[in-house]
Amino acid sequence: MNAAPHFQRVALIGFGLIGGSIARGAKLQGLAGEIATTARSEKTRARVVELNVVDRVVESNAEAVKDADLVILCIPVGACAAVAQEIAPHLKPGAIVSDVGSVKGAVVKDMAPHLPDSVHFVPAHPVAGTEHSGPDSGFAELFINRWCILTPPEGTDAAAIDRLHAFWSGLGARVEIMTPEHHDLVLAITSHLPHLIAYTIVGTADELGQVTSSEVIKFSAGGFRDFTRIAASDPTMWRDVFLANKEAVLEMLGTFNEDLSKLTRAIRRGDGEALFEHFTRTRAIRRGIVEIGQDSAAPDFGRPHPSLRKE
Amino acid sequence: MNAAPHFQRVALIGFGLIGGSIARGAKLQGLAGEIATTARSEKTRARVVELNVVDRVVESNAEAVKDADLVILCIPVGACAAVAQEIAPHLKPGAIVSDVGSVKGAVVKDMAPHLPDSVHFVPAHPVAGTEHSGPDSGFAELFINRWCILTPPEGTDAAAIDRLHAFWSGLGARVEIMTPEHHDLVLAITSHLPHLIAYTIVGTADELGQVTSSEVIKFSAGGFRDFTRIAASDPTMWRDVFLANKEAVLEMLGTFNEDLSKLTRAIRRGDGEALFEHFTRTRAIRRGIVEIGQDSAAPDFGRPHPSLRKE
Repeated sequence: MNAAPHFQRVALIGFGLIGGSIARGAKLQGLAGEIATTARSEKTRARVVELNVVDRVVESNAEAVKDADLVILCIPVGACAAVAQEIAPHLKPGAIVSDVGSVKGAVVKDMAPHLPDSVHFVPAHPVAGTEHSGPDSGFAELFINRWCILTPPEGTDAAAIDRLHAFWSGLGARVEIMTPEHHDLVLAITSHLPHLIAYTIVGTADELGQVTSSEVIKFSAGGFRDFTRIAASDPTMWRDVFLANKEAVLEMLGTFNEDLSKLTRAIRRGDGEALFEHFTRTRAIRRGIVEIGQDSAAPDFGRPHPSLRKE
Repeated sequence: MNAAPHFQRVALIGFGLIGGSIARGAKLQGLAGEIATTARSEKTRARVVELNVVDRVVESNAEAVKDADLVILCIPVGACAAVAQEIAPHLKPGAIVSDVGSVKGAVVKDMAPHLPDSVHFVPAHPVAGTEHSGPDSGFAELFINRWCILTPPEGTDAAAIDRLHAFWSGLGARVEIMTPEHHDLVLAITSHLPHLIAYTIVGTADELGQVTSSEVIKFSAGGFRDFTRIAASDPTMWRDVFLANKEAVLEMLGTFNEDLSKLTRAIRRGDGEALFEHFTRTRAIRRGIVEIGQDSAAPDFGRPHPSLRKE
C-alpha cells in the first residue's frame, strides 16, 4: 500500500452528509488538486457554492466528471444505475469510478454494465454516518477510525484499488476489502436490520392509544431515545437500501424473529434464568465494541450532563 | 411546591449506579445532613468506604434505616419485597420510604403490605441511566434534566410527596406524578420494549453462521452499536423488570410485531412508497426528542471524532 492518496481532479456526484464530508476531508488533507461537485437540486448547488468548500459546482453530472481522475457517486443506491449510464460517455480513460452505497451487490449489478472498459470501477462503502443529511451536515472528521469497505469486482486493476485505498486512508478511515455478497450480509446485520427495527419501534410508539406521543418523547431517556437517532436517518437512502438488499435483510429478520420469540416466551413463562443468561451474554458484546474503539466508554455515550450548581 | 429538599438522615439501600449517583448528588447539593448506606456484598461496602462519598457504610439494612427520615431502596425490583419486610420494624415513624425501580405496579404490590402505617410510602422512578453499574459508576449529574416519576398510592400524605419532589428537584430532575399502572405502560414502550429489542438483536448478531462476531463488532458503527449500549445494562435489574412488568411488555410487543410484519411485507413486495412514508414519519419523532432537550443534536450523539492532522 504505497499508492499516493492524491488525485488531480475529483468529482463528487451528490453533496449530502457523505459527499460533503469527503469534500471537506479531502480539502483539509490535501487529497485533491481540484474538487468539482454537482447535486440534483438547484437549491443544494447554490448552498454548496455558499459553503465554499469545493472548487467548482457544476450543473450536470456529465460536466462534473469531465477530466476527473476519481469520480465518486454520493447518492442513494437506487439512483446509481441512471447516473452511471449518464456519465459513462464523459468519463476520462483511466479514471477510477466509485460510490458510497450501503449495499454493494445491487450497485455493482446496476453500475458495471454501463461503465466503459477504459475506467476502473471500485465500489466502496464508508461505514460512517450521523442522523443528519443535506449539504450542511458533512464534516471532515466523519470517517476517522471508521471502516471503509471496498468491493472491487474480480480482475479489477490492483493499482486502482490501491489508490482508492490510499484516498480513504487519507480521510482517516480503516480500509477493508471483501466481496459484494459478503458485504451485504455483514451490513444486513450490523446496519440494515438495526435500522429496520428502529424504524419499526419508533413508528409503534407513535401509534399507541394508551400512551401519548408527547409522553413517549418526554420519557425517551429510558432507552427509546437510542433508537430514534437511527430512525431519523435519510428516508430516501434507507428506502433504497431495503429494496436493494432485500434478501439478506429478510434472512436476518427471520433469525431475529426467532430470537425475539424465545425471549418473549421466557418473559411469558417467568423464566428469569433464561433472561439473565441472555442479558449477561449481550453485555460482553458491547464491551468488545468499546474495546476495539468503535464506540466511547463514556457514560451515556458521552451525552452532556450539565453540572450541578451548588446553591 | 415549597417543601425543603433537605433531610436530616438519608438511608440508601444499595449503592449501584442509581444509589451512588443519589449519594453524590445529595452531598454536592447539600440535600442530606447525613447519608448512611449499605450494600449486599462486603466487597461493595468496602469500595463505598474507599470512595468516601457517604457518611456511614453499615452492614445491615436494619442498621441503615435506623433514625432515617428518608429511606430509598436502590436495588433491583425483585429484591424490594424482602427488603421492605426486613426494614419495616426498624423504620422511624414519619419517615418517607421510596425506591428507584423501573416498574411501579409490582413494587407497590410487593412493598406496601409490609410497611407500617406510621411511614409515608412514595415510590419513585428516576428515568436516567447509563450502561454502567456498580459502586464506581454513579455521578452527581446523572439526574439533571431527566424525569423522575413519583407514583404515590391514593391517600398518601401530600407533604411527604412534596418533600420527595423537592429532593429530586434538588438532584436536578424534573418531577412528574402518575399512577403506577400508567407509569408501567409508558415505560413499557419508552424503555422496556427498547431494551428487549436491543437484547434480542445483539444476541442474534452473536449467533450468526455467515458473519463472524468480530465482523459484527468491527462494523458496528453502521447502526448496530446504538443497540449495544442498552443491551449492556445490568442483567439482574433487567431480568426483574421484565418479570415484574410482564403484561404491559407483552402487550407492547404484540403491537411492535404487527408493525414489523407490515414493514417486512413492504420490503418483500418492493413497496418503496410505504417504506419512504414510514421513514419520514419516524424522523419527525426524533426531532421532537431533540427539541425538548431529552437528547443532543450533536452529530452521532456527540461521539468524539478525533481531528484530522494535516500531514
